Amino acid sequence: MRITHVDVEDVRFPTSLTADGSDAMNKDGDHSAVYVVLHTDGTAPDGSPYAGHGITFTTGRGNDIVALAARQQAQMLVGLDVAEMSADMGGTYRSITEDTQMRWLGPEKGVVHLSLSAVMNAAWDLAGRLAGKPVWRLLADMTPEQLVDVADLRYLSDVLTRDQAIALLRAKEAGKAERIAELERTGYPCYTTSAGWLGYSDEKLRRLCQEAIDEGYRHIKLKVGANLEEDIRRCGIAREVIGPDRILMIDANQVWDVPQAIEWTSALAPFDLLWIEEPTSPDDVLGHAAIKRAVAPVGVATGEHCHNRVMFKQLMQAGAMDYCQLDAGRLASLNEIVAVLLLAATFDVPVCPHAGGVGLCEMVQHVSMLDFVAVSGTREGRITEYVDHLHEHFVEPVTVRDAAYVPPRLPGYSTRMRPESVAEFRFPDGPYWAGRLATP
Amino acid sequence: MRITHVDVEDVRFPTSLTADGSDAMNKDGDHSAVYVVLHTDGTAPDGSPYAGHGITFTTGRGNDIVALAARQQAQMLVGLDVAEMSADMGGTYRSITEDTQMRWLGPEKGVVHLSLSAVMNAAWDLAGRLAGKPVWRLLADMTPEQLVDVADLRYLSDVLTRDQAIALLRAKEAGKAERIAELERTGYPCYTTSAGWLGYSDEKLRRLCQEAIDEGYRHIKLKVGANLEEDIRRCGIAREVIGPDRILMIDANQVWDVPQAIEWTSALAPFDLLWIEEPTSPDDVLGHAAIKRAVAPVGVATGEHCHNRVMFKQLMQAGAMDYCQLDAGRLASLNEIVAVLLLAATFDVPVCPHAGGVGLCEMVQHVSMLDFVAVSGTREGRITEYVDHLHEHFVEPVTVRDAAYVPPRLPGYSTRMRPESVAEFRFPDGPYWAGRLATP
Repeated sequence: MRITHVDVEDVRFPTSLTADGSDAMNKDGDHSAVYVVLHTDGTAPDGSPYAGHGITFTTGRGNDIVALAARQQAQMLVGLDVAEMSADMGGTYRSITEDTQMRWLGPEKGVVHLSLSAVMNAAWDLAGRLAGKPVWRLLADMTPEQLVDVADLRYLSDVLTRDQAIALLRAKEAGKAERIAELERTGYPCYTTSAGWLGYSDEKLRRLCQEAIDEGYRHIKLKVGANLEEDIRRCGIAREVIGPDRILMIDANQVWDVPQAIEWTSALAPFDLLWIEEPTSPDDVLGHAAIKRAVAPVGVATGEHCHNRVMFKQLMQAGAMDYCQLDAGRLASLNEIVAVLLLAATFDVPVCPHAGGVGLCEMVQHVSMLDFVAVSGTREGRITEYVDHLHEHFVEPVTVRDAAYVPPRLPGYSTRMRPESVAEFRFPDGPYWAGRLATP
Repeated sequence: MRITHVDVEDVRFPTSLTADGSDAMNKDGDHSAVYVVLHTDGTAPDGSPYAGHGITFTTGRGNDIVALAARQQAQMLVGLDVAEMSADMGGTYRSITEDTQMRWLGPEKGVVHLSLSAVMNAAWDLAGRLAGKPVWRLLADMTPEQLVDVADLRYLSDVLTRDQAIALLRAKEAGKAERIAELERTGYPCYTTSAGWLGYSDEKLRRLCQEAIDEGYRHIKLKVGANLEEDIRRCGIAREVIGPDRILMIDANQVWDVPQAIEWTSALAPFDLLWIEEPTSPDDVLGHAAIKRAVAPVGVATGEHCHNRVMFKQLMQAGAMDYCQLDAGRLASLNEIVAVLLLAATFDVPVCPHAGGVGLCEMVQHVSMLDFVAVSGTREGRITEYVDHLHEHFVEPVTVRDAAYVPPRLPGYSTRMRPESVAEFRFPDGPYWAGRLATP
């Protein structure tokens, strides 16, 4: 079975109309996906053609730029034997990242890294389907050597060598079966951000906090950073509704300089916060370290814009990060994510992936489950984001029950989109956008 | 006078055929430019239409991706009054960087930052033409307040506030006229990398080193990192030809992990090296700091892949950088470059810009001259890169005399390309590429 051709689609959902997903930096995002389909000449057990489906997430304008990059990178996979590719996902990944000309456009950051994520996510989906397993299970069933060969460890050997990584995984082999059984029983715990978008009214905030409690959530996260007085009022409302025992987090989405982050977080600290998320530029490792020292015991969480494993390495080396919020569409697929999980286990930093957007929840459930079963070996002090938006566009959407992700059972990476959603929201020529763009 | 429309061209030169510009990481680059032209409805004093010409540099594949991003960003300038834009270049810059949707694709890194550089470089060229000054002089003639308003200081206030920046520039106002006169007399010193590309034979290396000496250069830089034995041999040849008193630098172009960088540089240190350039991942601030501690007195130089001012801030805060090699096509134009010059002056780090590629020499001469005249106030311990490739494609190419850049006198940023070069090497439809791509 070979990869015969690829389709890359620019799909955008008009979320800016309802302020879903609005925060102090991202005021009017149209949550969008670059959707990559790797077609093959093979036939699945159910008679349908075998294909891999991968996405990355953006917030609208520029999604076509990522799509163009993904088209060029995906083309590098055309002609590959699927079984051979699946047996050497590390080599497949490196064959794209090491392109001697495109590398200049990053390296390993920005558009070409987002697009690589979509392409390799599709490759992982295909590998999972071929193995008949959800990808969390495909990876969890690997030997330590196999899993380390998947991981991109380049530039990490000052803190984590291949041998150290293998030893770390080997130490977690005992108890794997029990953890899988535990996961099947109770799922992976999540928190909701659906309540706290900045564009929502106080009433809506109050109502959504109450609904979250009623659904069993113990964590609530609010967007902050536009106006301190309003943030104090909104944190007050949230704390009042959820009571003293549930957990409150805040998220500034990078709007502050370092001194302002310290001042503002300190002003909100009386509301008993677990973490301040993205207090400043995502590139500012030393800035995060300074903020963390100043605002403790409030923790510092970051990662959704942390563009590669080298940045995560430093955030951990510098003691700048209490919670690692890696993003499954920004890191270049599981090849880089496994490296970050290994780093986090090495530095004992809990991984609490970023989700929301389009399809991130579908992916990060696999990441957290892999982390629990095979890498960190624990769910203690970990909680994965969940946002209840846009799942209706997926063939196999996430299931959340009792504030926990239920392990996906179907083969692949859960990011196959419904064909009718892709057709309707394709930019700019799907019926939705064609109609809207035709209206003056 | 208003900006009426924009042209963005993907121009690629087939440098991979001759190994010009080859190094251990970038083995076969086709040096390329995204070329942005901002057209206006105005007429210059010489009767030609007023236009601004800006470029960024890439190494081939993916240049079209940057061009697509540049097209979208340049479109944001269409309709602007040129005089109003020129009077508020800081605001113009921020209106693009703060796009609430495209920001997700960086922020401020990778493709969308390279493309922003090309777009704003064109805007600066236009502003210079309107003022009738080369851009180094346009900026050097600004008041401290005006120059600081140009600079993007966001995320820097933990080390450099607006007031501190103004005070720094004010302290350099005395002596400006003398420094301009000195510059007109003696130019800005440069070194050559043309001798030491990795793909060149020993004979060619020896001959080019001798030619460089004959032309008056006192610094020679070699590419290293592919093979230690060969590097020892090549450094030996270079040191033998240039003698004990001239200066030798080496450049590894990111091929090493941190421990390997320390080991390899230590093995070459006996050849008396001024600096090791790009020893590891450009993102690894803490890694560079560790290497610097280990290999002193060999200095650490980096910056051509340092993607924004927040990274430079940290490299300086961490004491990780002996020489700041900012890149005028990777930082998003003079708006960000001025911020980095201010940081470098604050931390007393000499700025030695990266050049070569396509048009980088044309731009960095302006940067170094501005730094000397208005920011650092000195040329002491500074040296700017010069590579003698591809200048024939520019209308106003650099002039190097006695191993020094001669100050450009014509208005603008020196990056207007010859129309016949653009036509010939446009990818994929110019005659050169159309012919080559048609040949199987």
